[in-house]
Amino acid sequence: MTTQQLLEQIKKKNSFLCIGLDVDMTKIPSFLLKEEDPIFSFNKAIIDATHDVAVAYKPNIAFYEAYGIKGWESLKKTIDYINQNYPELYTIADAKRGDIGNTATMYAKAFFEDMEFDSVTVAPYMGKDSVEPFLTFENKHTILLALTSNEGAFDFQTQLIEGKPLYQKVIEKSQTYNNADNLMYVVGATKAEYFKEIRNIVPHSFLLVPGVGAQGGSLQDVCQYGLNDQVGLLINSSRGIIFASNKEDFAEKAREQALLLQREMSDILKERL
Amino acid sequence: MTTQQLLEQIKKKNSFLCIGLDVDMTKIPSFLLKEEDPIFSFNKAIIDATHDVAVAYKPNIAFYEAYGIKGWESLKKTIDYINQNYPELYTIADAKRGDIGNTATMYAKAFFEDMEFDSVTVAPYMGKDSVEPFLTFENKHTILLALTSNEGAFDFQTQLIEGKPLYQKVIEKSQTYNNADNLMYVVGATKAEYFKEIRNIVPHSFLLVPGVGAQGGSLQDVCQYGLNDQVGLLINSSRGIIFASNKEDFAEKAREQALLLQREMSDILKERL
Repeated sequence: MTTQQLLEQIKKKNSFLCIGLDVDMTKIPSFLLKEEDPIFSFNKAIIDATHDVAVAYKPNIAFYEAYGIKGWESLKKTIDYINQNYPELYTIADAKRGDIGNTATMYAKAFFEDMEFDSVTVAPYMGKDSVEPFLTFENKHTILLALTSNEGAFDFQTQLIEGKPLYQKVIEKSQTYNNADNLMYVVGATKAEYFKEIRNIVPHSFLLVPGVGAQGGSLQDVCQYGLNDQVGLLINSSRGIIFASNKEDFAEKAREQALLLQREMSDILKERL
Repeated sequence: MTTQQLLEQIKKKNSFLCIGLDVDMTKIPSFLLKEEDPIFSFNKAIIDATHDVAVAYKPNIAFYEAYGIKGWESLKKTIDYINQNYPELYTIADAKRGDIGNTATMYAKAFFEDMEFDSVTVAPYMGKDSVEPFLTFENKHTILLALTSNEGAFDFQTQLIEGKPLYQKVIEKSQTYNNADNLMYVVGATKAEYFKEIRNIVPHSFLLVPGVGAQGGSLQDVCQYGLNDQVGLLINSSRGIIFASNKEDFAEKAREQALLLQREMSDILKERL
């Protein structure tokens, strides 16, 4: 999918909501456990109930990988289901991969070709030759970890190199890579002011923002500094939506939570654009 | 496997060789493509031919993931084959994973429990809460990326924070994490002098060293600064061994290449220990 197509979807739906499919077998409604593939059944119901209020879905690959081959089958069925039934939706493989050259190409093929995701999250630690192989794929995005929303982000990401925090160095440096147009960045919602500094470096890039809601960040604060004139934000919510209920009404309750966020987004877009 | 058991195996075999199972369908002997699972057949032959001269095997997960569910089946068969037939061998899932809290635990379970690897490589960018969940598993090692052997390593890893390169900060900081005893580090063989500095910080830790041979580092140079009195090194070679021939004799030729390295290691151990 192109950035333009993503933007058109955002404008049509008045939403820049991404739903994180971090599906934990111990948290889904117990009646689903009788199904042949409980994780896929859960995802299918969530997607069917929310596809018109969300623009993107982000399975966290770890949750599938943890169930071995069965988990990969659930993941493949989920991405195929989205691509076949809701081709307008933007898909993110939250894999946080990072390896070099040929290996990076293998990962890129796994997610862009075998699985047909629109984008994949990538870790920056290994530098240029671990990121560029992902960037060569046309109409696919590479979402580079910049500033994450966890406590450990302060171990290295905010440490200063020549007076600038590492995460800013990561963004600056990555903008010099070949096909940097295909880059987006993960920026946690922990401190809204960070978005101000990041927008100085990449005024036009899309930012994928975890940490709104469950992890404590405010949508209003993030939008104040993070929105640009092409929206430029995808706000992710996972548990707050998908685990809103663990009863028969789980999909309905997920929709309610998604709608609450979408309405807030719609108001912000009306004000700002 | 405990570090002590790994060390005993090293002493018994006079080898600290790790063989990288970076198996590319386009590079294995073409007659294997008729087999039901060519990648597993290839790995089985390589392992059977080299298990007495190598102490560790390191499948690079990307190469399996790229083939989707089939690739994961080949990987599972490979690790099961090793654990059932050669339980003394040390196994490394070269996955370079990095995610937080619960997600990290899911990754750890995937590799330590579902797959029963002895260790997994992990990226440090997200800090403490992305590493510690791996460290809680008993008799399992977490091999943290410190200094990699690729060109992109200079983008961030060697950048100075308070006068020290990031990779040294990563090693220092990670030594303060809970269960730091379960840590090993990936250190590329690009510059032997780096090992001197690293041994000042972690005199006792095992270092997994890629980049000897194909990527240009010298075994002698690495050992000069990297060996400690408990050996403390695992030297990885992938392509130079597994793709030594792409004909019927591929396993035999792989053994020859492995033996060359093992003999060099044996001489170094005799001299040094």
